[in-house]
Amino acid sequence: MALVSDGMTYAPKGKAAPVVKPGEFVFAVIGLYHGHIAGMCNGLIEAGAVLKTYYDPNPKYMENFAKNFPNVKPAGSENEILNDREIILVAGAAKTDERCALGLRVMEAGKDYFTDKAPLTTLEQLARAREAVQKTGKKYAVYYSERIHVESAVFAGRLVEQGAIGRPIQVIGFGPHRLGAPGRPDWFFIKKHYGGILCDIGCHNIEQILFYTGAKDGKVVRSQVANYAHPEYPELEDFGDCEIVLDNNASGYFRVDWFTPDGLQTWGDGRLFILGTEGYIEQRKYVNVGLKGSGGGHVFLANGKEETYYHVEGKAGFPFFGQLVLDCLNRTENAMSQEHAFKAAELSLIAERDAVVLEAAK
Amino acid sequence: MALVSDGMTYAPKGKAAPVVKPGEFVFAVIGLYHGHIAGMCNGLIEAGAVLKTYYDPNPKYMENFAKNFPNVKPAGSENEILNDREIILVAGAAKTDERCALGLRVMEAGKDYFTDKAPLTTLEQLARAREAVQKTGKKYAVYYSERIHVESAVFAGRLVEQGAIGRPIQVIGFGPHRLGAPGRPDWFFIKKHYGGILCDIGCHNIEQILFYTGAKDGKVVRSQVANYAHPEYPELEDFGDCEIVLDNNASGYFRVDWFTPDGLQTWGDGRLFILGTEGYIEQRKYVNVGLKGSGGGHVFLANGKEETYYHVEGKAGFPFFGQLVLDCLNRTENAMSQEHAFKAAELSLIAERDAVVLEAAK
Repeated sequence: MALVSDGMTYAPKGKAAPVVKPGEFVFAVIGLYHGHIAGMCNGLIEAGAVLKTYYDPNPKYMENFAKNFPNVKPAGSENEILNDREIILVAGAAKTDERCALGLRVMEAGKDYFTDKAPLTTLEQLARAREAVQKTGKKYAVYYSERIHVESAVFAGRLVEQGAIGRPIQVIGFGPHRLGAPGRPDWFFIKKHYGGILCDIGCHNIEQILFYTGAKDGKVVRSQVANYAHPEYPELEDFGDCEIVLDNNASGYFRVDWFTPDGLQTWGDGRLFILGTEGYIEQRKYVNVGLKGSGGGHVFLANGKEETYYHVEGKAGFPFFGQLVLDCLNRTENAMSQEHAFKAAELSLIAERDAVVLEAAK
Repeated sequence: MALVSDGMTYAPKGKAAPVVKPGEFVFAVIGLYHGHIAGMCNGLIEAGAVLKTYYDPNPKYMENFAKNFPNVKPAGSENEILNDREIILVAGAAKTDERCALGLRVMEAGKDYFTDKAPLTTLEQLARAREAVQKTGKKYAVYYSERIHVESAVFAGRLVEQGAIGRPIQVIGFGPHRLGAPGRPDWFFIKKHYGGILCDIGCHNIEQILFYTGAKDGKVVRSQVANYAHPEYPELEDFGDCEIVLDNNASGYFRVDWFTPDGLQTWGDGRLFILGTEGYIEQRKYVNVGLKGSGGGHVFLANGKEETYYHVEGKAGFPFFGQLVLDCLNRTENAMSQEHAFKAAELSLIAERDAVVLEAAK
């Protein structure tokens, strides 16, 4: 898999902030289809976890991973990992439609599972995953990177928690991505495998809408997908949007697309706007567009008292990973509740299932 | 009417760019309910039009207007203006639900009409306005200021026209406004008078969605309103949003609200995002949030070739007004077609009529 500048290589490094002693939390990797796996490992390792080994049936993926983690010994098979009683958690970035099946095997083997998003591609898979969590008592944790591994998102969460904008009443998210088609594997363009755009990258935004509004559930009231400009990939959805009304009567809207132009300095101008009764917050996650070399981590706050720009890159940290490690050890849910992780997936699958297809240009 | 920092006092001045000789185009004003009237007059005067006189039954409004236009003689009655054969066009900012009736009188009197937005408040009024245009052959032009009197919007229109972002496939607009409730007249809070938030300020965004996508018509597929935080004004809608699918299969979404916080340096952080198949444009119309003293006119373009920030304040101009003057003289439609102006109003009224009401916080 060629590396493409599209977010597949988004693997931020934070400061080491170990929550355990060396060797107290050992994990392994199965499934290297998506470059997110490097970010997932970075986060866990910074939290003090030890990556013991990794496996994928594809030797090319194994080679690539070895370059990033040269001191870790590859495993010879998936079973070698599943049978290793020292391993507490398996992190994985399998092909999207195989993530659930892998998770079921991992949980059956008595380990917690931490999968790249989207965590699954059908409501049937979701039902099986929920059942398995009930039956095994294990975790099916999800790497919703656009919130948990983005410093502006972490910082914005703290502002909201502190009451900086009153009660959040609406969230708007933009999730543009660069397509970089030549660097993509074939499965990327087959809807059965990637799940559709609202599943694949829309779940990030739904997770954020639930999180920032503090809602437990919501109703998809409108969703749309289109292939506006890529007839050569008939199953690609290059555009999608969705509106959700939450159970607390706040609402959320987001757009996702594969139209990031080549002239932009990074893979996507991801934004998130949180409107509250007493102010609002904007995140420019990966770039402050129009400013060369701006990097990420831009947060703007306006409320009754102030209008402030915060540049939080390197400052906000990524507390999710340490919380996840401790959640696994203590059987708590501080990083993210299981139901929240599943609900974001569920709503994204409903949005995808019910989406109105907009035809290409008339 | 106290002046409030909310956009009511938004009356930009451009460069004089007369399209007619002195005295060739004479206009008058009837209806001074909204401060937009100053901007409407500025625009016409910069285009070479002569403001002959003005009238409103409310002496306080007459006094306020006289301060801005001290050299113009007030009229003694509406009829004095309607009967003045020198006057070609009447500009007006009547109470919103009275704008149509005024327009009918103006057109019946053989003059073109130029009204503040929203141009009317019911579909019945719209039908009558359409009929009157047919019958009289006169114009019912609308001051959709958020596009025609905003330099970033004018400049963005040129970029789109030049093909800078390929085919526009989606427009997202934010129209936040500061409430400044103590400075508002009573009628402002009565829905029958202001028409609802999607009518009152939503029409700006619908006009822009139609304009930038180049669509002639559209279908409202979802709209919502709420009074989240102002129970003391039960008929105020402090939040609204709307999604539209255009007749060319592009789409648009916008949010409008009355939640601009006091800490923000201006009355609203108006934005407009245009996504094209080959790039995107963002407008930050009135402020570059987080930058003190930033003023307005910020346009950001990213496409296959470049990522560029344009600061267009004082540079893009306002061609609408000169075009309108010439349209009236030549019976052309270069400033804005009658059908476009009506269609934006129609869709905003449909959005308002069909809006789902979100209850305040659970």
